[in-house]
Amino acid sequence: MDINKHSLEAHKKLRGKISVKLKDQLDSKLKLSTYYTPGVAAVSTYLSDYPNEARNYTWLNNSVAVVSDGSAVLGLGNIGPIGALPVMEGKCMLFKEFAGIDAIPIVLNVHSADEIVDAVTAIAPSFGGINLEDIAAPICFEVEQRLKQALAIPLMHDDQHGTAVVVLAGLINASKITGKKLGDCSVVVIGAGAAGVAVSKLLHEYAEPNITVIDSKGIISNDRDDLSSVKHELASYNSKKYKTHEFSEAIAGADILIGVSKPGIVSQADIKSMAKNPIVFAMANPVPEIMPDEAYAAGAAIVATGRSDFPNQVNNVLAFPGIFRGALDNQVKHITEKHKVAAAEALAALVKHPTKDKIIPSVFDREIVPAISAVIT
Amino acid sequence: MDINKHSLEAHKKLRGKISVKLKDQLDSKLKLSTYYTPGVAAVSTYLSDYPNEARNYTWLNNSVAVVSDGSAVLGLGNIGPIGALPVMEGKCMLFKEFAGIDAIPIVLNVHSADEIVDAVTAIAPSFGGINLEDIAAPICFEVEQRLKQALAIPLMHDDQHGTAVVVLAGLINASKITGKKLGDCSVVVIGAGAAGVAVSKLLHEYAEPNITVIDSKGIISNDRDDLSSVKHELASYNSKKYKTHEFSEAIAGADILIGVSKPGIVSQADIKSMAKNPIVFAMANPVPEIMPDEAYAAGAAIVATGRSDFPNQVNNVLAFPGIFRGALDNQVKHITEKHKVAAAEALAALVKHPTKDKIIPSVFDREIVPAISAVIT
Repeated sequence: MDINKHSLEAHKKLRGKISVKLKDQLDSKLKLSTYYTPGVAAVSTYLSDYPNEARNYTWLNNSVAVVSDGSAVLGLGNIGPIGALPVMEGKCMLFKEFAGIDAIPIVLNVHSADEIVDAVTAIAPSFGGINLEDIAAPICFEVEQRLKQALAIPLMHDDQHGTAVVVLAGLINASKITGKKLGDCSVVVIGAGAAGVAVSKLLHEYAEPNITVIDSKGIISNDRDDLSSVKHELASYNSKKYKTHEFSEAIAGADILIGVSKPGIVSQADIKSMAKNPIVFAMANPVPEIMPDEAYAAGAAIVATGRSDFPNQVNNVLAFPGIFRGALDNQVKHITEKHKVAAAEALAALVKHPTKDKIIPSVFDREIVPAISAVIT
Repeated sequence: MDINKHSLEAHKKLRGKISVKLKDQLDSKLKLSTYYTPGVAAVSTYLSDYPNEARNYTWLNNSVAVVSDGSAVLGLGNIGPIGALPVMEGKCMLFKEFAGIDAIPIVLNVHSADEIVDAVTAIAPSFGGINLEDIAAPICFEVEQRLKQALAIPLMHDDQHGTAVVVLAGLINASKITGKKLGDCSVVVIGAGAAGVAVSKLLHEYAEPNITVIDSKGIISNDRDDLSSVKHELASYNSKKYKTHEFSEAIAGADILIGVSKPGIVSQADIKSMAKNPIVFAMANPVPEIMPDEAYAAGAAIVATGRSDFPNQVNNVLAFPGIFRGALDNQVKHITEKHKVAAAEALAALVKHPTKDKIIPSVFDREIVPAISAVIT
């Protein structure tokens, strides 16, 4: 099957993947008077006096905005809000299917940090939570940071933290299989975009391994004079002294390779240069940094990718539904690093007997959302 | 029954009046790959190249944002976005129930014209249309005007135009009953807020009767030095020379009284001073400018109010569902004065034999939306 053709046809048939459903019928004058005027005025008056009660009288207890400016959509780059809309509608499907959350696609035709922050802040009272999606680095970091300060509702840039939670869960189980203790590992992360930064930060938070991050100019280290404040922080996670800025120097002897970069840029020679029983997460889409069979042939102990047609798919849908379900149900105002670590541990624990082909639960495992939401408190 | 208590209890039970429904299930890897990655990338790529096709592949053909800043909610005044939210959720119920439209409540915590315009413009690509609601005058006029210029999707401030369309429909039928020709009538409008302005403008567009508008300082006439540009336009609809700015001078001899102001401010003596067989629309909520029995006792030929417990309820739900249904289905980019007149005529025509107790169809008449949407082209 040509999935692209099939997807275009399926979308054209549905003309919108989500719709609105009324939670009660509106088929009498009494219902009209109850849910609209004049009765609703009593609710409005009450909530304007007691705004914290709004979650008990409106959809705020179960609604999330999926917000994107379309600047970094999937692997397609900056395709704008209309191009982003079908992806956001799809994300809203995932929210409903996996966590019962009423999510709404909000695509923005503004792209500066100031404008995105202003728009999201303006509409924030409409929703119980905000899922930022497919916003390009480095603006995504500033946008998320400023919105977290401005708003007291759960908010998360999923490309960063959803990925980071699932990667950490996978690494927790991979460490059980290989006997490698994460805190003692040497980790190389290829890619310093949204996912690379968040994975590195969460790993640092969890176990403080030595982490070397690679961007398009090579090893991120403090001797470079082109680093943003975010990259300066990444550089501080590495205590090794490298002679060059070459990836080949960083990967030699490393225990863990995490690729969130480009297809095919890791060779079998790179894998062979790593420490014994290396762990390889090659998550470039649609083609990994190195294909699983090649990585295994070169000595990898465990390989994960972003693809559903290989074992160990790192898929954000393993994390964000449970995180938002828990945050909404438990009235969490800010999603913290501790929440993400707890989510990763809960996700990892669902795999009772990890093997090299199963370090992460299946996307369709219905235990995931209850397990994660229970620890987001 | 205490409707306020009943409404609070009903809202607390539902905890949100609308939810999201998926238009297809997401219960297999194939469905995930079709509606989300990797398949959705083909749709995104296509739409970024052909944005006009988005209505055929996303929910843009059927979605409307119901936007309010909470500055003029019902008769409650400026109660803010959280207070406004239950009203907007209720409006979304009406959109779905009466027109099958997927409407989403968007409440804003910004209140200046600049900020509201910026926020709505930013999120506009997410929706097929925008219904502005409960935004205070005079900011509502500027906001609507600027957004109409900025956006090429149907957009309407319902407090203005929904009301105006239903009033005009009622007047068309009232004129048939009384034999008064609208263009020859002397009309007095009490209230120069959102509804008063829009009713006056649409009546002027339709038949150019003599219209005298009253605000809190009395008759709006060009000899006053405190008039906004909007009120200058209203003043131009009147060619009479008054000696004072008193309401009593304007109402004497008038054929039609339209109240969109405050409870109880019209007396039986006022009605008695009007021309023979006067038409009285007393739409203040929850209590009319004059009660129907009092108006009839003073000689009124036809009385309409905003209330569901009297005949001839002027209710916006008679207009906006059909207008947006037609605009979305017929790809109308701007809702014009001609559309509103056509909607009013279509609505009036649904009452085959108008009587003093039925100049407007019932809210539950299922012929309304098809009849109105057919003329929004």
